[in-house]
Amino acid sequence: MGTRVEDVGEFGLISILEEALPVDVRASSNLRLGIGDDAAIWQPTPGAAAVLTTDSLVEGIHFRLDWTDWESLGHKALAVNVSDLAAMGAVPRLALVTLGLRGNERISDLQSLYRGLGVLAQHFSMTVAGGDIVRSPRALTLHITAIGESPEGTCLTRSGARPGDVVGVTGTLGASAAGLRLLEMDGDDRRRKATTADLLIAAHLRPEPRVALGAMLLKQGASAAMDLSDGLLGDLPKILMASGVSAEIDARRIPVAAAVRALFPEDWLELALRGGEDYELLFTAPPSAWEGIVLAANQVGGELTGIGVIVPLATETSAIELIDLDGSRRSADSGAFDHFAPSEE
Amino acid sequence: MGTRVEDVGEFGLISILEEALPVDVRASSNLRLGIGDDAAIWQPTPGAAAVLTTDSLVEGIHFRLDWTDWESLGHKALAVNVSDLAAMGAVPRLALVTLGLRGNERISDLQSLYRGLGVLAQHFSMTVAGGDIVRSPRALTLHITAIGESPEGTCLTRSGARPGDVVGVTGTLGASAAGLRLLEMDGDDRRRKATTADLLIAAHLRPEPRVALGAMLLKQGASAAMDLSDGLLGDLPKILMASGVSAEIDARRIPVAAAVRALFPEDWLELALRGGEDYELLFTAPPSAWEGIVLAANQVGGELTGIGVIVPLATETSAIELIDLDGSRRSADSGAFDHFAPSEE
Repeated sequence: MGTRVEDVGEFGLISILEEALPVDVRASSNLRLGIGDDAAIWQPTPGAAAVLTTDSLVEGIHFRLDWTDWESLGHKALAVNVSDLAAMGAVPRLALVTLGLRGNERISDLQSLYRGLGVLAQHFSMTVAGGDIVRSPRALTLHITAIGESPEGTCLTRSGARPGDVVGVTGTLGASAAGLRLLEMDGDDRRRKATTADLLIAAHLRPEPRVALGAMLLKQGASAAMDLSDGLLGDLPKILMASGVSAEIDARRIPVAAAVRALFPEDWLELALRGGEDYELLFTAPPSAWEGIVLAANQVGGELTGIGVIVPLATETSAIELIDLDGSRRSADSGAFDHFAPSEE
Repeated sequence: MGTRVEDVGEFGLISILEEALPVDVRASSNLRLGIGDDAAIWQPTPGAAAVLTTDSLVEGIHFRLDWTDWESLGHKALAVNVSDLAAMGAVPRLALVTLGLRGNERISDLQSLYRGLGVLAQHFSMTVAGGDIVRSPRALTLHITAIGESPEGTCLTRSGARPGDVVGVTGTLGASAAGLRLLEMDGDDRRRKATTADLLIAAHLRPEPRVALGAMLLKQGASAAMDLSDGLLGDLPKILMASGVSAEIDARRIPVAAAVRALFPEDWLELALRGGEDYELLFTAPPSAWEGIVLAANQVGGELTGIGVIVPLATETSAIELIDLDGSRRSADSGAFDHFAPSEE
């Protein structure tokens, strides 16, 4: 059974979780006061702009404890926040972590959660500056605020895309949605047992924020960027709307992992177009910057693919024209996933 | 009935709530990018230290919708965070606001929530830089991260109390706990109908963070401070532990509002000693700084009272020795309120 939260209490838990973090994740030269006071004190880098984001995971909505291990859950809770910083081209610095707990959670599970979070924080040289622990009687919640810096004071936003710009994505699309489908399947399903299944499930449970690629895109003159959490057709319209432009996307050029095509031969494209939670970067760049971006991506070991082009704002048709696998053109009925929308589909 | 969250969806709601905020709470010269992108971009004041805190309110744990109006709820969610900044002597700057919603909330109620939050933010010249909206199917949750600045780079912490320092508090203690008692009462109770009852209930529902007093305490050389959320006997031990000292507190000098004494004649002292959520400041200061602190408090229109003295660390007895109303001395069995502790009392 093991010790539970209600056995050690709120203040016991704070020090147990602090100790589950690597030492260099609890302290840094810029963090002048960390966990344990009313607030944390952080000395920003002179001249840098601070980049601030916040994202929550709620049990039953964003994760299921029977599908994820605790370390992966800690990893993902921080990763989805760092991904927002990566999309701005920012350098991650700090995280504030709030746990909403029932009280009957096992201490060892929460230590695993913090270990998963701590390893990712350490990878990006981030410090956990503090947070809060509250009772959340009916659903475990993980709430993180991440703070990064833009040393030059500039960032990649959603509003800079211009007609003629190339539309690009990092990595491959649809793997996370394919992993989620596999988790939903019966354990005896042929596809669930495929040797590549674990790879796709890992893409869903442990996304890797594209921090180095985001910084590179900013440096190399990309014009706009965001991270893909709601699927390509859900997120691209946000850049198009913020920039006042439209786009043509060539479905034949969208990068999709072989495992996704193999396990879902009938709808791999749908997974790539609408599947969420890839946490890859979607970006636009002037054609003149493209070659430099591709070269620089190779240098940091990242992959990217041009999948379309920004065009002037179309008033009569959909904002996204999709060139389908057979070369035919159609309007993509875009729209982001809306947690509160009436469930029509 | 009115429009509900599920009618307008996540993205409709974001712009509705943004518009419920005063214009100067949505933008400031230092906030270079606000609500609507992957992250906000904020330019810290050169040389200032950033002060970071985060605090959540969960329905059923921290508030009840049948006890609070929505504007007060918005006020309080921000106030408890600003209070942590005040306790550091910091100047509030930014807030990130996350709402966890069921989906059936009325839009007009959430607009009221944002109005209450917005008025307080405006009062302190804070900007709401962004946030997140997530589904929280079983309990409304309000999660805020507040960021302030310390222009000189120094802050009031919990660890600076030294033997001989005066222990002081701002305002009066016990009013919030008395207000909570009144809310728990039957509407026909004599005390619930007292003319002073609303004053105490307001102290519970709409605490006023002591920002000006916190900044003054820092400037005038206070040695330690924190805000009172868990009651005097719950919070003072945190300063004592962090500073490695003990304290003598004179119960006869603790400031308690006349309304609390009148409505709770049998246990007003208990409310003042153990009642939580006053959000007054508890601080220590060297005797040499005391006179300057009292004068400066008068200038900003704030009240403060010396209630005891810091003494060398007592190893044999409790960390707090209490001089009772009759002049007798006893050990105060201190201990902070623990949300997860077994409910023995």
